[in-house]
Amino acid sequence: MKVAVAKRMLCISSPAEMTQYVREQKKLGKTIGFIPTMGYLHEGHASLFAKAAESSDCVIASCFVNPTQFGERDDYVNYPKDQAHDIQLAEKSGIHALFLPSAETIYPNGEQITVKVNAKTNVLCGKSRPGHFDGVATVLTKLFTIIQPDHVYFGMKDAQQVAIVGSLITSFHFPIKLIACPIVREEDGLAKSSRNVRLSSQERAEAPELFKGLQSGLTKLKTGERDFAQVIETVETYYKTHLKLGIVDYVDVLNYPDLKRNAPVISGRVIIACAVRFDQARLIDNVTMDCEVSAK
Amino acid sequence: MKVAVAKRMLCISSPAEMTQYVREQKKLGKTIGFIPTMGYLHEGHASLFAKAAESSDCVIASCFVNPTQFGERDDYVNYPKDQAHDIQLAEKSGIHALFLPSAETIYPNGEQITVKVNAKTNVLCGKSRPGHFDGVATVLTKLFTIIQPDHVYFGMKDAQQVAIVGSLITSFHFPIKLIACPIVREEDGLAKSSRNVRLSSQERAEAPELFKGLQSGLTKLKTGERDFAQVIETVETYYKTHLKLGIVDYVDVLNYPDLKRNAPVISGRVIIACAVRFDQARLIDNVTMDCEVSAK
Repeated sequence: MKVAVAKRMLCISSPAEMTQYVREQKKLGKTIGFIPTMGYLHEGHASLFAKAAESSDCVIASCFVNPTQFGERDDYVNYPKDQAHDIQLAEKSGIHALFLPSAETIYPNGEQITVKVNAKTNVLCGKSRPGHFDGVATVLTKLFTIIQPDHVYFGMKDAQQVAIVGSLITSFHFPIKLIACPIVREEDGLAKSSRNVRLSSQERAEAPELFKGLQSGLTKLKTGERDFAQVIETVETYYKTHLKLGIVDYVDVLNYPDLKRNAPVISGRVIIACAVRFDQARLIDNVTMDCEVSAK
Repeated sequence: MKVAVAKRMLCISSPAEMTQYVREQKKLGKTIGFIPTMGYLHEGHASLFAKAAESSDCVIASCFVNPTQFGERDDYVNYPKDQAHDIQLAEKSGIHALFLPSAETIYPNGEQITVKVNAKTNVLCGKSRPGHFDGVATVLTKLFTIIQPDHVYFGMKDAQQVAIVGSLITSFHFPIKLIACPIVREEDGLAKSSRNVRLSSQERAEAPELFKGLQSGLTKLKTGERDFAQVIETVETYYKTHLKLGIVDYVDVLNYPDLKRNAPVISGRVIIACAVRFDQARLIDNVTMDCEVSAK
């Protein structure tokens, strides 16, 4: 008589063991889906886990606060951690394995060899975070080599990261399909983020304006506007009128995923992206659209 | 009736096809051995191919003149090429597949993402070739991802490269075993190199002194000398006496593969390395030795 055994999620901390686990799964003919995270998991991550379960047989997530992508030591040390909660949420999400390595095992010889991102970094959030995406690309190269996933899942909330991960996969020839998952939003349109809890109630009431401003830019595009500056101005004007507490860090319109202006006028896929600073939280949001060349 | 079919070596130029080929070989349970080369194959390469056949089921070599590891454009453009001869030699060596990609397919988005080597570069040959090992590490990361070898084979002639490849494998967690193959020498001790043909007959007669000088350093170590400077001086003095045409570029003694002095006195594995310039060729050579701490 066979007895049904509850399958438990594996927690693995050794890179070699993780590679071995993946090897066994692949031998069984399973495809591997991977979601890298910095832990402190929330609904946003859970939605990526659920998405992964749709298209991969074996879903693996990592929780690793990567020291090399932080600008300041303090920021790294103070990054929120709650491993017990992470394990609980991951297990509840039904993923198959959780990778919880230490910084020492991921960086066994320090930073002797690192990855350098030479494009797409000097715009949007990258402009104010020199070296950040080098750290991201370095740790992802390591994780991709350890886990050898068929699919990786990233949220479009950090659209610049998604664009750079695309470059990384292409550059290094990883046989990986990048699956960009749509931004998950609250009922009122605010993009979900662990930072939202840091908003005061007044700020929280204002925060949905970020998305509305981006939508005003979209509307402009839909009416045939193809001038970069005009679309940016539309969004900026919206924010000037509607934001009382938030301070605009940037609004930009760029081709996506190239993250530059491919031509003097807008054509092809573009992103409208913004960052707005509130008292205790800096929020980012974006929308993308495929634009035909307008006859306007 | 089954007919014996002569197995021919595959020539593959597409990264995706190469990854597919490797996947099929692995499904058959075969281990993959890989020898990256810049083409213009000679006996030295053939010895690596033979070595690989001893420990890998499926042997793959690449011929790719990597543009990003050259300091000067001219040097890259003028690098000798003879693909027909490469294919012939590779096939004769009995390897299973030869990877012959173009620079455009290996660098599909230029140098958007590259690898940076932050250690072991500012000594020996690396000192006079800034960026060289970044290019080497970048292309090897790509090739390792495409070919996913179990074993890679490098000649110890370029000992610094072997040390850095070791760091690369460790840093990025490639599940690859690095096999460093001993230097192949002529009867008179001269390390085999495609550059040796550029020596005049007088220079060729003098060239074996390089190895003899290194051996004088080894003898010093064997008698218990543990002072770095003393061993270097021994070799330098030998060259002063025995080299009439060659000009010493460097002689150095370092811990291996760390490529630095791990302690004030010599202990553990060390390399004695030299570079000597002749009129049309710069030759390098090295010896390594495991040293106990001497009671001298």
